Amino acid sequence: MAKAAKPRSDARYRKGLSALKRIHGDAGVAVLETLAKTAPKLSEFVIAFAFGEIYARPQLSLRERQIATVASCATLGHALPQLKSHINGALNLGITEDEIVEILTQMAVYAGFPAALNAVGAAAEVFAARRAKAKPRTARTAK
Amino acid sequence: MAKAAKPRSDARYRKGLSALKRIHGDAGVAVLETLAKTAPKLSEFVIAFAFGEIYARPQLSLRERQIATVASCATLGHALPQLKSHINGALNLGITEDEIVEILTQMAVYAGFPAALNAVGAAAEVFAARRAKAKPRTARTAK
Amino acid sequence: MAKAAKPRSDARYRKGLSALKRIHGDAGVAVLETLAKTAPKLSEFVIAFAFGEIYARPQLSLRERQIATVASCATLGHALPQLKSHINGALNLGITEDEIVEILTQMAVYAGFPAALNAVGAAAEVFAARRAKAKPRTARTAK
Amino acid sequence: MAKAAKPRSDARYRKGLSALKRIHGDAGVAVLETLAKTAPKLSEFVIAFAFGEIYARPQLSLRERQIATVASCATLGHALPQLKSHINGALNLGITEDEIVEILTQMAVYAGFPAALNAVGAAAEVFAARRAKAKPRTARTAK
Amino acid sequence: MAKAAKPRSDARYRKGLSALKRIHGDAGVAVLETLAKTAPKLSEFVIAFAFGEIYARPQLSLRERQIATVASCATLGHALPQLKSHINGALNLGITEDEIVEILTQMAVYAGFPAALNAVGAAAEVFAARRAKAKPRTARTAK
Amino acid sequence: MAKAAKPRSDARYRKGLSALKRIHGDAGVAVLETLAKTAPKLSEFVIAFAFGEIYARPQLSLRERQIATVASCATLGHALPQLKSHINGALNLGITEDEIVEILTQMAVYAGFPAALNAVGAAAEVFAARRAKAKPRTARTAK
Repeated sequence: MAKAAKPRSDARYRKGLSALKRIHGDAGVAVLETLAKTAPKLSEFVIAFAFGEIYARPQLSLRERQIATVASCATLGHALPQLKSHINGALNLGITEDEIVEILTQMAVYAGFPAALNAVGAAAEVFAARRAKAKPRTARTAK
Repeated sequence: MAKAAKPRSDARYRKGLSALKRIHGDAGVAVLETLAKTAPKLSEFVIAFAFGEIYARPQLSLRERQIATVASCATLGHALPQLKSHINGALNLGITEDEIVEILTQMAVYAGFPAALNAVGAAAEVFAARRAKAKPRTARTAK
Repeated sequence: MAKAAKPRSDARYRKGLSALKRIHGDAGVAVLETLAKTAPKLSEFVIAFAFGEIYARPQLSLRERQIATVASCATLGHALPQLKSHINGALNLGITEDEIVEILTQMAVYAGFPAALNAVGAAAEVFAARRAKAKPRTARTAK
Repeated sequence: MAKAAKPRSDARYRKGLSALKRIHGDAGVAVLETLAKTAPKLSEFVIAFAFGEIYARPQLSLRERQIATVASCATLGHALPQLKSHINGALNLGITEDEIVEILTQMAVYAGFPAALNAVGAAAEVFAARRAKAKPRTARTAK
Repeated sequence: MAKAAKPRSDARYRKGLSALKRIHGDAGVAVLETLAKTAPKLSEFVIAFAFGEIYARPQLSLRERQIATVASCATLGHALPQLKSHINGALNLGITEDEIVEILTQMAVYAGFPAALNAVGAAAEVFAARRAKAKPRTARTAK
Repeated sequence: MAKAAKPRSDARYRKGLSALKRIHGDAGVAVLETLAKTAPKLSEFVIAFAFGEIYARPQLSLRERQIATVASCATLGHALPQLKSHINGALNLGITEDEIVEILTQMAVYAGFPAALNAVGAAAEVFAARRAKAKPRTARTAK
């Protein structure tokens, strides 16, 4: 992320990077490093603005912010990569699979069934990927 | 709501009507009675399906469901009447004005600034209408 | 519509204007004449392209085309003026109020309830305006 | 679909499942069984609400409902999997390929060319898959 | 804008406020001051982020940025207040009415005719308001 | 493109095909020939209407039209194939990679970050494909 080096010294950027790591883990940082190769300013904004300024505000809990974000990304319809990333973040924060599915089911009312169905499909992929990763090596070998 | 009389005996419909009253008050019931004059089946679905089945499920608290709904309606962009109705519902459930504004501010990240700005405009109207209603008659006369 | 004078001699334009008049009546022509004052080329396209080429094709009946258009405008969410215009056109073609409400009710499944509710609100306005116009003068005086 | 067993005894659910089978065939049932593994309530709603209540109403023919649904899914832009499923359902009901392409061409006017182009791409995939399936085994061997 | 006082000392905020004034004039500042009464953080972001960081970058001319913004707001469909504001900004930068109408006409191809028609309606309102304002008092009296 | 043979003699169609070739090259023609196999009328409209009528008008430069189109396709969210095609067209017209990334970064303000992030992902694919193609055969062999 050479081109984006300058803002690393910025307080908002550092705070955002720390929130990004806490919610999305190393995978989230990797996504933004890939983005920064093509669009360094956009990557910087995601970190300094979305994570450094908005997520850091105390008016809502991180759990509640993540519920709002999952609802919004499912509603957009065209944001499945971001929805998957935020479902992962929600699970990292302790929101359960059942709670995520419940939010997505509720979205059928507002965004329509196609948006909700595609969102559940994205959630199923995230759930399966985490289970595959969580399985101990021996279990997979045995299989 | 003569045409919609039949489902009133239905358990889901009764449960939905009760949830609708709790969250949206008499104003919410009035909106659906107006809707039922033109589209009785659609009005019945809102009550029996959205409120009677989805909102009644225990997987999420009503507060969390309302956060998701406000986020979704703000994201849609074309749902300002429903957003206003659900901001009212959120305030009825004890969600504060500051918390609602915070959800809408966060939506700028996912749905863009125009959607967030129009949502805040809708919220400001709801807040003002409730304050005007809350003022005692004498206060308004004095003014 | 001075600026748009040239295409009037065009076969597609004339065919489109005739279809526009048949489906939307004088009100539809008036809307496009207003549009032509600001955007003559866009007005010409609506007539020559949408009405002159697409609506004139025999693959679907006008009734079926109008069902598809009402469904599409209701789904868009931001197209309430066009939805109202096309509901009027549908009624002119003999599609009943009940059938229109049924299409809009079905749209709740695909586009979500807010889009369907706003579409029904638009339909109710069209229905009421036509009834007000249909009332004989004496009936209104008597009232 | 173990978790969704309860509603099977419900009249709306049974009616919906029967309509689903008639329109979408075994492939449609399979899609909803996969969905039910992650989101059993959402799967139940698709069957009991969309197919059991709305599609069963007599106000529109199944052919007309399917035209409206294809128009709506094409307009949404983000609903290509559902559009493909409903194009399949339309063909099962006897709507021809030419009629489907005509609806999608008309959608360019309301939803824009990108939505129409992607919808036609989805239709072409459905048409090709059905032709591949329809070819007798010998024909394929000969090739 | 008492609550938003702190960022006024911020370089990005000051740069953004100056760009806002240059493009949108006092009317633009007034809109954001009204917004700040309900959502001070969102108002600050519009100024410091959209105007202070993005618009200030040299990669595109202000004229080209404004073309992209008018195209985007017209495409969204739900952003008519922002579209009007940015059409005003475009005219302030020397983009002509004809050029704006041409961008909006082109948007019919990508976002569909309803979005383009509503955008032209918004443009017509802006054009008329500016002409009314530009007319000397005597001219209006004479008429 | 046998079925679409008739319009080839049409002046608008020929002008459109020539503009299409100039902006999008042989790849653009190939895309529309594939489209014409399923939807010949839609393919004809893209060429005769979008390219033959709108792009040919002198009110905006081709560079400015392409900026507006890239902004619009990025805003739609569901138009990634068309966005990639128009990013290619923009590069063919001499718009630089940096300028394209700047437009897409600006779109985060209006269409939200998910739409902007997916648009940058599409741009990165186009940039990489062109670089792979530009590499001389020997360079690739050496590697």
